Amino acid sequence: MSPSLGSTEALSLFSLSLACFGILANTLQGEGEPLIASIAFSGLAFSLCYALIRWLGNAFMRVGFKGRDMAKLKHVEIPETMGAVCALVYLFILMVFIPWPFYKDIVAATSGGGNRDVVQVLQQVETGRLLHKFPHSKLASYLSAILSIQCIVLLGIGDDLFDIRWRHKVLIPAVGAIPLLIVYFVDFGVTQMVVPIPLRPYLGELFDLGWLYYVYMALLSIFSSNSINILAGINGIEVGQSLVIALLIVFNDILYLSPFTPYPHPATDSHLFSLYLLLPFIGVSLALLMHNWYPAKVFVGDTYCYFAGMVFAVDGILGHFSKTLILLLLPQAFNFVYSAPQLFHIIPCPRHRLPHFNARTGLLECSRVEFKKPLPGPIAEVLKILHRFRLLDVETDETGQVVSSSNFTLINLWLVWFGPMREDRLASGLLVFQTVVGLLGLFIRHRMALLVFAQDNW
Amino acid sequence: MSPSLGSTEALSLFSLSLACFGILANTLQGEGEPLIASIAFSGLAFSLCYALIRWLGNAFMRVGFKGRDMAKLKHVEIPETMGAVCALVYLFILMVFIPWPFYKDIVAATSGGGNRDVVQVLQQVETGRLLHKFPHSKLASYLSAILSIQCIVLLGIGDDLFDIRWRHKVLIPAVGAIPLLIVYFVDFGVTQMVVPIPLRPYLGELFDLGWLYYVYMALLSIFSSNSINILAGINGIEVGQSLVIALLIVFNDILYLSPFTPYPHPATDSHLFSLYLLLPFIGVSLALLMHNWYPAKVFVGDTYCYFAGMVFAVDGILGHFSKTLILLLLPQAFNFVYSAPQLFHIIPCPRHRLPHFNARTGLLECSRVEFKKPLPGPIAEVLKILHRFRLLDVETDETGQVVSSSNFTLINLWLVWFGPMREDRLASGLLVFQTVVGLLGLFIRHRMALLVFAQDNW
Repeated sequence: MSPSLGSTEALSLFSLSLACFGILANTLQGEGEPLIASIAFSGLAFSLCYALIRWLGNAFMRVGFKGRDMAKLKHVEIPETMGAVCALVYLFILMVFIPWPFYKDIVAATSGGGNRDVVQVLQQVETGRLLHKFPHSKLASYLSAILSIQCIVLLGIGDDLFDIRWRHKVLIPAVGAIPLLIVYFVDFGVTQMVVPIPLRPYLGELFDLGWLYYVYMALLSIFSSNSINILAGINGIEVGQSLVIALLIVFNDILYLSPFTPYPHPATDSHLFSLYLLLPFIGVSLALLMHNWYPAKVFVGDTYCYFAGMVFAVDGILGHFSKTLILLLLPQAFNFVYSAPQLFHIIPCPRHRLPHFNARTGLLECSRVEFKKPLPGPIAEVLKILHRFRLLDVETDETGQVVSSSNFTLINLWLVWFGPMREDRLASGLLVFQTVVGLLGLFIRHRMALLVFAQDNW
Repeated sequence: MSPSLGSTEALSLFSLSLACFGILANTLQGEGEPLIASIAFSGLAFSLCYALIRWLGNAFMRVGFKGRDMAKLKHVEIPETMGAVCALVYLFILMVFIPWPFYKDIVAATSGGGNRDVVQVLQQVETGRLLHKFPHSKLASYLSAILSIQCIVLLGIGDDLFDIRWRHKVLIPAVGAIPLLIVYFVDFGVTQMVVPIPLRPYLGELFDLGWLYYVYMALLSIFSSNSINILAGINGIEVGQSLVIALLIVFNDILYLSPFTPYPHPATDSHLFSLYLLLPFIGVSLALLMHNWYPAKVFVGDTYCYFAGMVFAVDGILGHFSKTLILLLLPQAFNFVYSAPQLFHIIPCPRHRLPHFNARTGLLECSRVEFKKPLPGPIAEVLKILHRFRLLDVETDETGQVVSSSNFTLINLWLVWFGPMREDRLASGLLVFQTVVGLLGLFIRHRMALLVFAQDNW
């Protein structure tokens, strides 16, 4: 990777930035138009992140943030932990963006004495333009979101530096979620869930989860971060899946905005909030993907996975669509459940489960685990059944003893299904899969929700 | 340094933590008593930081955060950047503390509909006990303070990792201050200063600084962080001076609390805010000082200096006593002005200006800069005058030409004044100096303020 920008790149980034600055300058007049500003900021985030990845690559390698790509013919060293650059740019943009949705002239219209929770009178808000400012009380939520993300970035960099053990690693997102949970507790404190119709006779219409709600939120952030971290290992897959998920959430958010839903809708604010967090994320992730896509010129590091997972968790919690988020993470959830037998050492787990690179063909093949000791009878039977349903590739010797099987990851399963392929085709295939499952999930969520809930909050 | 705690240490820390937990459990009943909780949290911060410094020392050395102490007979390698541990513990404690001053039951007493700015009716607040909760609107300020400190810690660790150049380094605190300034802009926005009486005919009673106020706040954070970073280089001096400054601010804060000032006083809230930020800082700094005092077992790193400086800047800005803060930083300001000729290369500046360690006596002597080329006439004259006032130690040859002088730092000046001494006596001397100057500053601030202002805000 060249440490400086080519002239075409430099020119494109410069024009993009200029355009974004122009848009921002425009939003200073009139209503402020935070959604437009957010889009412009995302463009700036992209340019800044793109340029910084180039400029800082060598500095990262010098400090020891570097790794070798084993799925290539030449194992050249390339910069690692570039997700940290992404995350820092993202955080910076999120902070600078604050005055657009939160500027105080929205409260100046009220008595001015200090009551900042009254939203500007409705006719002053231009309802047709999707544009909206927040009441001041949301600022604490927004700041707690930034804090949680910044926390996880700090911890993620610590992890990339110190190589923390797996069992400690898993808990990092829970620590990162602390600011979010505490501000939620202090500021919002709603811990009730809408109960599905079949359970209403037993639980009532709303069920107060109490402190269990905080456990649920902590688990969500653990799940969201770690599930992305597990579905990893080939060029572009970490950033790619995060981008797909982010775009699907954005798609879902847009459904709640003006042309699709009558304004003002009770959920509009939450989904605007979600957009403000996601658009810059898409900006920085795109810049990273362009350097991490096959053949990768940088690695993203655990930092990126934590960061992306936390952005989603924060977004889902503060946007009040955590169940929808889980739907969008179904491929990750499947990968986790599928990996569990190896993660929890029910079945031997080799140190690396990445696909195997065949230097002769240049293709990736599914990697295998050899069973030196014969497996216990029931487990061997289960493996054979999975093999019959094409959910595993099991090799048996002449006596019917299981000798080896493909490793238990979604990436290997994909190779079992579709045979050896080049790294970028593998990544694209998985991303298409993620998109299709996500769209299906959103369809189910909006169409089928009425079967189990009295009303869709749409 | 032993990587584990001795049994006495472990027992002491354990008892201290237990006592603090007990106090915290007690505050859960009744009014919450955030000031008592803050003291208990500071005890926990001390224990946690003390233990973590021990446990993480080796891990830091492995990653390359290590340095040699040149002012000792044996140049053993010891862990560096331990300020990062300090800062992380501090941030963690600050976050967990949030529910105490900000819990929502304070607003439950009001209409509950959303107006969260009305403070609990006065007779419910026990005025005799120094205890007070905040109106909810202060939460955004508190979160922005944490964000700014977390920002600077991230950047500080980046600096310790990448060894950023001086001219970029200087600006790091300004970047770190961004969240604070933006939330100040959005949430508070008061940019007026009280004008001293002599200037009132020209400027009026209040002068609106406008955007210059934000420049002033950014400069304050730059000054506060970098001035501590410059007065550094011997065991315990960075943490020691920060502790002295913190204790002096706490002393000043206490003057505004109940037994000394009739309650409620307009400035009480700001000074409680300041205490909540400073008490845990004192906790972690004390734990660090016990490992960094002569003979140092760990180094603090630039991270600590940035961190400490930012805590003071944030504290001064949000507590509305930035001018008092500058008074307390007078020794640092003197050191900066005194260093300026070398910093700006008016006079040659050697790579290190630390005192010189005399291995034979075991004492530190002032380090000197040799002038290989003769100095320009006027500069040489100024040096000679400084020498006459004992503000420098200048050596001349037989022709009256200036050959060398002591380096331009407060630490070297101290050695010029009082002769060679052991490292810990040097550090203690400077800390006593800092304390005396600070107390004098506070005296001037409260006694003499009436000469230039119409009233002391006391």
